[in-house]
Amino acid sequence: MLAGAAAALFVPATAAALGGTSAAAAATAPLSRSLATPEGTTHRITMYVEDLGGGQFGYGLAPGQATIPGPVLEMYEGDTMEITLVNTTQSTVSIHPHGVLYTTDSDGAPMNDSFNQPGETRTYTWRTTGEKSLGRWARPGTAGYWHYHDHAMGTVHGSGGIAAGLYGGLVVRRRGDILPDRQFTMVFNGMLINNKLAPNTPMFEANHGETVEFICIGHGDMFHTFHLHAHRWANTRTGYLEGPRDSSQIIDNRDLNGGDSFGFQVIAGEDVGPGAWMYHCHVQFHSDAGMAGIFLVRNADGSMPDGAQEAIDRFHGHEGGH
Amino acid sequence: MLAGAAAALFVPATAAALGGTSAAAAATAPLSRSLATPEGTTHRITMYVEDLGGGQFGYGLAPGQATIPGPVLEMYEGDTMEITLVNTTQSTVSIHPHGVLYTTDSDGAPMNDSFNQPGETRTYTWRTTGEKSLGRWARPGTAGYWHYHDHAMGTVHGSGGIAAGLYGGLVVRRRGDILPDRQFTMVFNGMLINNKLAPNTPMFEANHGETVEFICIGHGDMFHTFHLHAHRWANTRTGYLEGPRDSSQIIDNRDLNGGDSFGFQVIAGEDVGPGAWMYHCHVQFHSDAGMAGIFLVRNADGSMPDGAQEAIDRFHGHEGGH
Amino acid sequence: MLAGAAAALFVPATAAALGGTSAAAAATAPLSRSLATPEGTTHRITMYVEDLGGGQFGYGLAPGQATIPGPVLEMYEGDTMEITLVNTTQSTVSIHPHGVLYTTDSDGAPMNDSFNQPGETRTYTWRTTGEKSLGRWARPGTAGYWHYHDHAMGTVHGSGGIAAGLYGGLVVRRRGDILPDRQFTMVFNGMLINNKLAPNTPMFEANHGETVEFICIGHGDMFHTFHLHAHRWANTRTGYLEGPRDSSQIIDNRDLNGGDSFGFQVIAGEDVGPGAWMYHCHVQFHSDAGMAGIFLVRNADGSMPDGAQEAIDRFHGHEGGH
Repeated sequence: MLAGAAAALFVPATAAALGGTSAAAAATAPLSRSLATPEGTTHRITMYVEDLGGGQFGYGLAPGQATIPGPVLEMYEGDTMEITLVNTTQSTVSIHPHGVLYTTDSDGAPMNDSFNQPGETRTYTWRTTGEKSLGRWARPGTAGYWHYHDHAMGTVHGSGGIAAGLYGGLVVRRRGDILPDRQFTMVFNGMLINNKLAPNTPMFEANHGETVEFICIGHGDMFHTFHLHAHRWANTRTGYLEGPRDSSQIIDNRDLNGGDSFGFQVIAGEDVGPGAWMYHCHVQFHSDAGMAGIFLVRNADGSMPDGAQEAIDRFHGHEGGH
Repeated sequence: MLAGAAAALFVPATAAALGGTSAAAAATAPLSRSLATPEGTTHRITMYVEDLGGGQFGYGLAPGQATIPGPVLEMYEGDTMEITLVNTTQSTVSIHPHGVLYTTDSDGAPMNDSFNQPGETRTYTWRTTGEKSLGRWARPGTAGYWHYHDHAMGTVHGSGGIAAGLYGGLVVRRRGDILPDRQFTMVFNGMLINNKLAPNTPMFEANHGETVEFICIGHGDMFHTFHLHAHRWANTRTGYLEGPRDSSQIIDNRDLNGGDSFGFQVIAGEDVGPGAWMYHCHVQFHSDAGMAGIFLVRNADGSMPDGAQEAIDRFHGHEGGH
Repeated sequence: MLAGAAAALFVPATAAALGGTSAAAAATAPLSRSLATPEGTTHRITMYVEDLGGGQFGYGLAPGQATIPGPVLEMYEGDTMEITLVNTTQSTVSIHPHGVLYTTDSDGAPMNDSFNQPGETRTYTWRTTGEKSLGRWARPGTAGYWHYHDHAMGTVHGSGGIAAGLYGGLVVRRRGDILPDRQFTMVFNGMLINNKLAPNTPMFEANHGETVEFICIGHGDMFHTFHLHAHRWANTRTGYLEGPRDSSQIIDNRDLNGGDSFGFQVIAGEDVGPGAWMYHCHVQFHSDAGMAGIFLVRNADGSMPDGAQEAIDRFHGHEGGH
């Protein structure tokens, strides 16, 4: 899709420019910024690591706003993100990104002495780049559905921080990429989704016909496959095909293991209609144990589709035993 | 390959049109239909869920014909399949497809009240579509090597039905796709292949030079990798490359986990000759425990190649201890 | 990249022609041959299987030179490799390749009576081919980052040999592929990397700006994901994109399970600078248990970058408990 068409598709919810601290953080929030930033923008944000109690920790863009997963961070290839990380906890923590560019100072790894001591504030800088032509080939740029996570709490690989919820989505777009109406982050972390078990897993909601973006991230010690009912995508950088000669596989189920991430966009309920559609890990005993949730596609006017409430109630009944 | 060339390659074995109930069901059957159906065909079939004894259940296209895996169901993008599912068992069952389009009524999930009670007959409708151009990009259609399975027996995710054998291949082709001479379905399900352990795993047979299609499906609670000796394919929708600029990886080993599926075509014995070629899970203790079988490439005239019977005998001896 | 440009990039370290027995074998050796061989070359090598003591076995290109992993074997599509395998051990062994062409005689599998008895010498022949055009599509050739391994020690699937170290990289290039300055082989085998645990895992070294090639291979009974800090690649045959319309995903983390292999090239420290960069399995308890190592990017002149020695020392301290 051309940039013009992308702009036409995109209806900013609050139009807060990326780079401010007002961007909404929750996993199911409507996309809250236009991304209409000039080329080479430097986004300066402050992130707070907070103890949420009960062994859970989160990242947030303002004090008291930490969530699991943390806020989706977004930029375009060519942009820079400077993250002032405020550690409000009693533990060592850090922020380690996948996919983007950083010097050893911003690695987020204790091996490179790159982490926050308890109470410490420290700045991490992530840069991005477009692809570099080599004639026939090109070295890839940094566009992708990436993620960030702690690399210092519990172990030098951040195993304690990740288990506790210190993770979030990181999207680097290429100019011209299609922007979604809604954006969901889904983290398979051990036997949990966003550190929850069914029936408390997130219910992602959209209206019939909206363009929704799923950001899928794997963490922890288990192997998983992510399956979404009644929707499918291409196994590419964006989930779209690049025209009729693109040979990529079309999928509705994909491995999602430690450190992996992928993303895709679908039109909610396209060709299948609104309703309560299940997403789940397709490893059978994982879904049976509660790695399942609902993608609720409402009617186009936002009303509840026939049968959806009954399905939600059944989901709570079926999964109530966990 | 152009459609004309594809037609020239394809030699229908029985020329039964898809949509009848006479299509052969066994995993190793020669392809039994021409797929020479008009655009937008609605295929109406009746499927029977049957108790095969010993804790095994199967899907079949006629009473008493249930197999593990069930019959391969095929259509072209744009077609519709209406499945009248007859539940001859004492359990709740359903049929849930991957990749294709369905309303919540045909989801096959108890959450959407979409399943057969014991003894009940119920119709499920699957639709398909081609890709939708967005200018530069396209939203993918439904072409693919997919699969179907129970989603209601044992648990609300069908874990009991899947373990018992309620699964099969579903192929949605794009017009112009190459049609094979032979078609094999291989389901890695827990520690079994098509619910069998070596040496009782299927021996897939073809003649040297035939185009054979493998449909590979993963199920259950284990992780697996599928490896085929002496043959390779592209990691694409079809297993073919789209010309010399297709950057896709060429593989002979691929992850095959719960809910995953892929397919590919090879020329049996191309450049390597006939013989007994092994396929197996490449997780070592899985192959040692019996997740292995034989792809027997006979001579072009159908006779047994030198050494093949000895290899088959050795396979039965090696694997006889399970 | 065009072949001319590739030649300009490539600086042979010792310019020993492939096909001799002098090629360096160690996992971290600089690339020791020009690959400037004529089309259709037959490479005749002798490989020795040796007992390295302590339950470890290796392949080597000369007596007393066996290593874990074995030497990288390389050829171009269209070449042949004849391997005279000398079994100096008391066990049955073989060599089984992925990706390339062989008759049942060279399968390396006991099922096809293709293995070396203790003390026996036996020749295995591997052939390769380019892709075959089918008009719109093509059947893939044999280019790829493949691997070879034992298929006869311990079990008929070679589980004993693989566990003991009998594996190595096999690269089949297409004419025009970019040649690297350095080449590293990384085998995730059970809970070990190249049969070592941190801090004894290999430290791969390159100078800032060099083109380095990673050959990643999975073996054994565990599931893994390979992650490299501060570098990324395309999920393609080569790790490069084929121009701006290539839709392939860009990744820095990838599943690496039994029998899988992939490879890619990066410019050491490109856009991120020199330093000690970590690579590790991203399954958290695997990295914590020692599946981690260092990719040391030295300054362009080969000197140690600021902070790198301290990072290496910390790595040895952190990981010292294993």
